[in-house]
Amino acid sequence: MSSEPKPDPRTPQDVLDAAIEALAGDGDDALAKAAAEGFPDPGGVIAWTDRVRNVLLHQRDPFALRSELATLVDHLVTLLEALPGGLPCSAEEISRCFLQTLPGIRAQLAEDVEAAYEGDPAATGYAEILVAYPSLHAVTIYRVAHELHRLKVPLLPRIMTEHAHAAYGIDIHPGAKIGRRFFIDHGTGVVIGGTTEIGECVKLYQGVTLGALSFARDADGRMIRGEKRHPTIEDEVTIYAGATILGGDTVIGRGSIIGGNVWLHESIPPHTRVQIKPPAQRVQTGEEEDDEAQLHWDI
Amino acid sequence: MSSEPKPDPRTPQDVLDAAIEALAGDGDDALAKAAAEGFPDPGGVIAWTDRVRNVLLHQRDPFALRSELATLVDHLVTLLEALPGGLPCSAEEISRCFLQTLPGIRAQLAEDVEAAYEGDPAATGYAEILVAYPSLHAVTIYRVAHELHRLKVPLLPRIMTEHAHAAYGIDIHPGAKIGRRFFIDHGTGVVIGGTTEIGECVKLYQGVTLGALSFARDADGRMIRGEKRHPTIEDEVTIYAGATILGGDTVIGRGSIIGGNVWLHESIPPHTRVQIKPPAQRVQTGEEEDDEAQLHWDI
Amino acid sequence: MSSEPKPDPRTPQDVLDAAIEALAGDGDDALAKAAAEGFPDPGGVIAWTDRVRNVLLHQRDPFALRSELATLVDHLVTLLEALPGGLPCSAEEISRCFLQTLPGIRAQLAEDVEAAYEGDPAATGYAEILVAYPSLHAVTIYRVAHELHRLKVPLLPRIMTEHAHAAYGIDIHPGAKIGRRFFIDHGTGVVIGGTTEIGECVKLYQGVTLGALSFARDADGRMIRGEKRHPTIEDEVTIYAGATILGGDTVIGRGSIIGGNVWLHESIPPHTRVQIKPPAQRVQTGEEEDDEAQLHWDI
Repeated sequence: MSSEPKPDPRTPQDVLDAAIEALAGDGDDALAKAAAEGFPDPGGVIAWTDRVRNVLLHQRDPFALRSELATLVDHLVTLLEALPGGLPCSAEEISRCFLQTLPGIRAQLAEDVEAAYEGDPAATGYAEILVAYPSLHAVTIYRVAHELHRLKVPLLPRIMTEHAHAAYGIDIHPGAKIGRRFFIDHGTGVVIGGTTEIGECVKLYQGVTLGALSFARDADGRMIRGEKRHPTIEDEVTIYAGATILGGDTVIGRGSIIGGNVWLHESIPPHTRVQIKPPAQRVQTGEEEDDEAQLHWDI
Repeated sequence: MSSEPKPDPRTPQDVLDAAIEALAGDGDDALAKAAAEGFPDPGGVIAWTDRVRNVLLHQRDPFALRSELATLVDHLVTLLEALPGGLPCSAEEISRCFLQTLPGIRAQLAEDVEAAYEGDPAATGYAEILVAYPSLHAVTIYRVAHELHRLKVPLLPRIMTEHAHAAYGIDIHPGAKIGRRFFIDHGTGVVIGGTTEIGECVKLYQGVTLGALSFARDADGRMIRGEKRHPTIEDEVTIYAGATILGGDTVIGRGSIIGGNVWLHESIPPHTRVQIKPPAQRVQTGEEEDDEAQLHWDI
Repeated sequence: MSSEPKPDPRTPQDVLDAAIEALAGDGDDALAKAAAEGFPDPGGVIAWTDRVRNVLLHQRDPFALRSELATLVDHLVTLLEALPGGLPCSAEEISRCFLQTLPGIRAQLAEDVEAAYEGDPAATGYAEILVAYPSLHAVTIYRVAHELHRLKVPLLPRIMTEHAHAAYGIDIHPGAKIGRRFFIDHGTGVVIGGTTEIGECVKLYQGVTLGALSFARDADGRMIRGEKRHPTIEDEVTIYAGATILGGDTVIGRGSIIGGNVWLHESIPPHTRVQIKPPAQRVQTGEEEDDEAQLHWDI
């Protein structure tokens, strides 16, 4: 922690000059290295993302689609060409591959809408899913980012899913594989790691973490990057609020139900229900309190 | 999960044509059905919501109020007339009823500000509550949305509360009934279901869920919609961070205190304190580790 | 809860007049008191904050720095002069002191970027930390707000950190003291109270609360404001998702690891690992269910 600022005998101009010199300095810190690596402007990526999302969820008019898709492909080429580091093939080829994935994504999103309606008794219709369910919007952005991730595009997919994370509190790494008919109810606090595999018809509630159990390290103690660190969730699994499932070898068998607040790092066979034992609760009626109770209750 | 994209012999124009045809296709999926149901532009609803919030929290000048309220009522009529599906009475009648509710909402918000100041020792004054407490803003939007929900306006109330959810991480369904002097500290991750009933002087912390225990289904296995599925919280109850209270028959008696991380789906009598038994903790001092510990500690 | 709206015999003009009169009324409620205390426009503070953040994270060009810093200092003087209540010294002096802190903040942020890269095996480089890690942005805003808090500037620091809270779901009070190489992974739901002290090389996961155990009250039952109510976290501590650590006397000794979902309000010696005992889980395989299981499993 820095020390208390002290009265400064220097003139304001001196102080400004010193700040400029320090901030501009030709240092070699991580911020300088990040600048040297290079990165795109997140604002441009986010604008493109929201326009793709709008086309996928709303646009069915062929004339509007022709104009919108052509613009989006051109914009994607520009975004790709501005990326530092190598692309696996030309920006045009990637954009064309990406264009091919859109009909499939749209079909998946239509099924995601159905899964949301079927999964929430509070939903009044399909229209409400479109205008008032954060899951659909976060999953739309994830599904688009995931296709770019599969095309080995760097940085853009992560900027896209962090845009969804900031907007909806749902953090899905673009590397995760997620099957058909996926629904997250409420969603704030959900974290899905980059090597997670999720089957079909899976439903999550708010605060669910699908995370890493431990980080493998090499002989020099450095973390090994790229291994499967996150769990596999088979078809038709439901995971309730606040549950945490960890580890690359952990498999939740199909049809299983994981109760709220469960903390799990072992595989579970199919059609299994897991819940925490209801915690021993200390219940005390009336106004009087003993000292020990006082200690524990008052948070 | 879709298959790997493959090299495509088609020209870019062919790929574009195919994408347009697939996206525009006259299918009958859930996205097409949502479009057929019709829905308002969320952007317009959000702009109106933020303007109502500004009037309620800040505007006391009679001349400005006359102009602002007239504009807001006209805007509401436009929003209502653009809604698909039937309104229970004319847009003008609903707008007039809504206008009548504003003084009552304003009086409630003033008390919510007091409750926030009294509930948080970090608050330095009432002004800080207005500019730096998400609870006040989420609750303002909820209280306005709730009045429109009571007037049986479809979709708009949910768009409004999802705006608050996206902005503050606090998800309050407009159907919930919430009494005077309500305060949520920090708030991220809070979920309050649509049939929840909350009395006066209730205080929640971040991550509290007031949710459904199970979904009733009819003879055909379809969820029954509209039943009371969420709990009742009586007056002067405090619920600490991460607690989850579930079920339409669950009643938390007045004056009770629910500790952090409690998972509760049974009623609790008045003036009761409930907490989880502190979990058995495994504490190991020093650098050395046995294998079994290794298994558990490293997440 | 207000009563059902009833048919109203009044003309729309009458209803509008009545609403204006009620909203404008010369009452003495908490909203009127907040207006009397006075407060700055959050929009202006947020715009300034985002510009400071941009300079700290991205700007190294001396000419651009000269122009940007001069503008930021002028803007800060304007923001400070518009504040109600007394400043501890002139707006110009505070701005000059603030300018002096920027090189130190920038050096800290570069180390925070390194800590993020080292702390997350999913990170592909330093650039990704800048464009896709909410922790860096929330911590940048916190570090700037903390310097203004130390300079005893009212309201502005809290508006700044609430901006970060709304944007990233990470709620750090500007009064907290946080050392070098700080990293929060994912981050949604994190709460760090205003009297928390955090050492160097500390790593938190999503949903961690560093909060107050109880509120001290004076002889009249009023909360005492300003005491140390939040924990001390020593160097090189890691705290996993959903853990809650409470109390001003609670010290987590250096090098300790706190497991997920731990609920802790007692001090822990250095180099200690704490975890909850894995909860007794009820696992039931197959399709058939007994009634009692039904009761518990279906949430």
